[in-house]
Amino acid sequence: MRETGPPGAEGGDDGPWVSSRPRAERARQLADVLRQRITSGAYEDGVLPGERELGAHLGASRNAVREALALLRNEGLISRKQGVGTTVVMPKYGHGLDRLAGLAETLTGHGAVTNEVRAARPVPAPPAAIAERLGLAPGEGAVYVERLRRLGGLPLSLDTTYLTADIGTPLLRCDLAHRDLFALIEETSGQRLGRAEVSVHAVNAGPDTAALLGVEAGAAVFAIERLTHLADGRPVDAESLHIRADRLALYATLHRGPAPKEA
Amino acid sequence: MRETGPPGAEGGDDGPWVSSRPRAERARQLADVLRQRITSGAYEDGVLPGERELGAHLGASRNAVREALALLRNEGLISRKQGVGTTVVMPKYGHGLDRLAGLAETLTGHGAVTNEVRAARPVPAPPAAIAERLGLAPGEGAVYVERLRRLGGLPLSLDTTYLTADIGTPLLRCDLAHRDLFALIEETSGQRLGRAEVSVHAVNAGPDTAALLGVEAGAAVFAIERLTHLADGRPVDAESLHIRADRLALYATLHRGPAPKEA
Repeated sequence: MRETGPPGAEGGDDGPWVSSRPRAERARQLADVLRQRITSGAYEDGVLPGERELGAHLGASRNAVREALALLRNEGLISRKQGVGTTVVMPKYGHGLDRLAGLAETLTGHGAVTNEVRAARPVPAPPAAIAERLGLAPGEGAVYVERLRRLGGLPLSLDTTYLTADIGTPLLRCDLAHRDLFALIEETSGQRLGRAEVSVHAVNAGPDTAALLGVEAGAAVFAIERLTHLADGRPVDAESLHIRADRLALYATLHRGPAPKEA
Repeated sequence: MRETGPPGAEGGDDGPWVSSRPRAERARQLADVLRQRITSGAYEDGVLPGERELGAHLGASRNAVREALALLRNEGLISRKQGVGTTVVMPKYGHGLDRLAGLAETLTGHGAVTNEVRAARPVPAPPAAIAERLGLAPGEGAVYVERLRRLGGLPLSLDTTYLTADIGTPLLRCDLAHRDLFALIEETSGQRLGRAEVSVHAVNAGPDTAALLGVEAGAAVFAIERLTHLADGRPVDAESLHIRADRLALYATLHRGPAPKEA
């Protein structure tokens, strides 16, 4: 099993990571293991062990550990400082994909979610593509809400949404700075929400989005489209969310089962 | 509702997109709408209408449309060529987060998934962090499989996984180049898979991952951790996946309901 390393790879203390692949690939594998540990809260106080100890625990050389940590630093997950060591930059929160919930609902207990309401207004003539998604009749208006969401004072996500006029108009009188739209919709309409179709993309943030979210242009962010329906099936809320991927991960528990009859 | 535009924003033909915000933000909003349309297959032949027609449909100026298309070109979603117009670079496939399925199962009908098997071997001493995830006894070995997956000949994802020895060893004699691990596990073990815990991250690809996936270093990719259990609850498959985000989106249908008793 043990093969000669490529030029530039270090010697014989790499344990199970040794292979014919370059050191960069072993660093990537190590980074995967470490990312999983860091984001699952394995280092409770946010301080990682030293390179030597990590190497022993992960069965890898100190050089490989150092390169893996460099990758994770580039992702914005950790910072490394002489004398301080390696620390987790900020906890990465989890947003569940198991049930439909607003961000504030999901993050209960993690700190206050506050929203900078950047826009909240009726839109007499929404774009045709939006009208189509919401199933609006020709000439029907909508309501537009845009919020920059912060958790613990730092930007977390930019949420822009079009709502049908009947559902959206009462929201304009609500406390949009502190409440989840989902909870407000259910309170003001007296109706339960039903399902939402969600699509999750990973994109490099454009300069405008990056500036709003407080990340570098080009940083990887989640771009999420979410179309939410009332319990009776009518679509009422067509959202686009941009979420800082260095602050949030998405979680789900999936179950094996027969393929659904229809997609 | 109609406000004066900021310096540099164009005049009065922006319909519902007019606001006090700079043009860059309107471009971002337009890009959101267009991304949703493109990735949901609204342009069946992969050719987008001209800027003027798009603007009319989306209620936006031609300048705003042009800037939105520039954002989407930077995401690698579209290409723009003089004389050819705006075309979708490649279809973005959907991987469902509703049930546990392998990539090949999900992409049935979209073309052949083939795998370059980069590693498939027993690992006598897996890293402690992996042993812990898989619940291995001290000294227990595992099996390591690494595959670069292609769809229609182009790289789609890099899958690295550690399997428990009892489940992984029989797989080493199987057709790992053409089959999903999930299906192979169920066939060789005679047991059904149960649940998987999945965490989804968006990261900027490091140079090594980028080279393998055929994207530029720094491109946004999905980094997914998936721990899969047999139906009896035992964890057997600890995976790290890196997936090209310009080729794949994740989809889910979420349902509103009471908050689960336990997170």
